[in-house]
Amino acid sequence: MSKTSEPAPKRYWEDFTPGQVIEHGPRRVTREEIVAFGKEFDPQPYHLDDEAARQSAFRGLAASGWHTAALTMRLVVDGEFRPAGGILGVGFDELSWPRPVRPGDELHATSEVLEVRPSKSRPDRGLIRVRTTTFNQHDEPVQVYTGNLLVPRRPTEAAR
Amino acid sequence: MSKTSEPAPKRYWEDFTPGQVIEHGPRRVTREEIVAFGKEFDPQPYHLDDEAARQSAFRGLAASGWHTAALTMRLVVDGEFRPAGGILGVGFDELSWPRPVRPGDELHATSEVLEVRPSKSRPDRGLIRVRTTTFNQHDEPVQVYTGNLLVPRRPTEAAR
Repeated sequence: MSKTSEPAPKRYWEDFTPGQVIEHGPRRVTREEIVAFGKEFDPQPYHLDDEAARQSAFRGLAASGWHTAALTMRLVVDGEFRPAGGILGVGFDELSWPRPVRPGDELHATSEVLEVRPSKSRPDRGLIRVRTTTFNQHDEPVQVYTGNLLVPRRPTEAAR
Repeated sequence: MSKTSEPAPKRYWEDFTPGQVIEHGPRRVTREEIVAFGKEFDPQPYHLDDEAARQSAFRGLAASGWHTAALTMRLVVDGEFRPAGGILGVGFDELSWPRPVRPGDELHATSEVLEVRPSKSRPDRGLIRVRTTTFNQHDEPVQVYTGNLLVPRRPTEAAR
């Protein structure tokens, strides 16, 4: 799943600008993964059993929304976003699942940098506001969130 | 973990009122669970390795925020919230992780019904707005979200 080429360099706060778009994925999701996640974290019939799912609002087996969120995190961590210090989400202003993820779907995601601002309290880091949209293989959105991430500022020569 | 008494009855939209509070949990989180979730969905050093975590912004091993979210879902599904038709989140207005979940933490959660409104497009269901806060064993919040759930209305005699 991960690429064999050199990993992208870590990015500091100064490296992010509004309008940047970073692509993640793709990754296929299996029925087994959907059911395993459902059993562990969200044991509701439409995440576990085809027949029960057909009779539910989902009209067929669907991944838990939290599974979609976790899979998206994996896409982002494996991709080229790579803020220095890691992907540290401090909060989300919105999170929605416009349609379910189905067995066999192939997911990819796009992160767009919306805003870049310094931290008021900490001169060594800043905040970036990012909208990440996850799509299925038909390019239909299955998840949208807008989050705020903490990113370290590039160390000055004196601080190195 | 689940109770041996009768499960709570399913609740229809009409059964929810603003101000209702429903408790979920508790459930202990192990180091092994934190690392396993990290390996699968969020392989960043502070979710995987004690020494690397000590040197990170987390100052010690911490659960992925998405793990906290998934564990909270399990607390809610196992609890007495039980809307008829399942817990169908259509979107969140906020989601934040005020502090990390640590190995050995015991989580519990509280859901408060903030708002109850009919669906404009569908007479057979309504929406409820719920704030769910997850706490550790020191009653410190580790996650807060406000979500909107779809809930079926109680069937009328004629529709049964």
